[in-house]
Amino acid sequence: MTALTNRRVAFLVEDGYEDLECWYPKIRLEEEEATTVVASRSTGMYESKHGYPIEANYSAKDLEPSALDGVVIPGGTGSPDKLRRSGEVTDFVKEMDQKNKMVAMICHAGWVPISAGILNGKKATAFEAIKDDLVNAGVNYVDESVVVDDNLISSRHPGDLPEFLRAIIDYLS
Amino acid sequence: MTALTNRRVAFLVEDGYEDLECWYPKIRLEEEEATTVVASRSTGMYESKHGYPIEANYSAKDLEPSALDGVVIPGGTGSPDKLRRSGEVTDFVKEMDQKNKMVAMICHAGWVPISAGILNGKKATAFEAIKDDLVNAGVNYVDESVVVDDNLISSRHPGDLPEFLRAIIDYLS
Repeated sequence: MTALTNRRVAFLVEDGYEDLECWYPKIRLEEEEATTVVASRSTGMYESKHGYPIEANYSAKDLEPSALDGVVIPGGTGSPDKLRRSGEVTDFVKEMDQKNKMVAMICHAGWVPISAGILNGKKATAFEAIKDDLVNAGVNYVDESVVVDDNLISSRHPGDLPEFLRAIIDYLS
Repeated sequence: MTALTNRRVAFLVEDGYEDLECWYPKIRLEEEEATTVVASRSTGMYESKHGYPIEANYSAKDLEPSALDGVVIPGGTGSPDKLRRSGEVTDFVKEMDQKNKMVAMICHAGWVPISAGILNGKKATAFEAIKDDLVNAGVNYVDESVVVDDNLISSRHPGDLPEFLRAIIDYLS
């Protein structure tokens, strides 16, 4: 038993997800005995930026926010770019936020919470390429390895993963 | 400060290393504030099984076992198959073992300690494909997610990473 034994965390992926930004948090939470589920626009197999396969065993519309403690959205340009086009994905992220569940985003993942409309007035970081998109969505953007603003946790790139996970585990504990 | 703040751990990689079997332990130990170094037969860039790049900033002959607390050898068929052919690599692993430093191997990585001649009489696990090679090298092979026998820590595949890292962190603490 750890502090995370009964926690359930969803991961949102599409083709092109950044390998380590998905797998490091996923295995790390499992090391803490949390349960992880992988979701996408529909169930099936997806491939990372470098071709690492992952199975989405949920479609976003079948995720139940009330049964989850948080969502992690990996970066990798292609993955959040595809995910944000799905109303089922953005509705899920919006409902997670409304229920004050953890929303964790890294790198380009910020596009999904932008399209879910949950970032106005928040403090966050992201990969510098999408800084302008965050600012235009009302974010107080800072260039730091990890930023925690209430239920929103954000980091910039794979080099931040150790600090991103410390913050996520702290939040869920 | 954590229990691992002053620990130094080397990773041995070659082209074809299994992505998560290298990166998950590496980032995980960094999350615990350990220092990691990446070594190969020579310095330079290497690619994982799926093409994820990593830089080896040491050649095996320049590693100093007395300045290290352990070595992690990832699997991925191609990587240990290449590493074991280098006397500098196997001499390093042998000296780590002689100094009772941690030797951690996962999946196909067992080929390197076999060629270093350090496994006779040990209890260990590995990916099932190399079971016979381990048995012929004098190993008491068991099919378990993680096996700790003195300074030797072994696991079977990426699905064992949470338990592999719990054992590694316990050992180094």
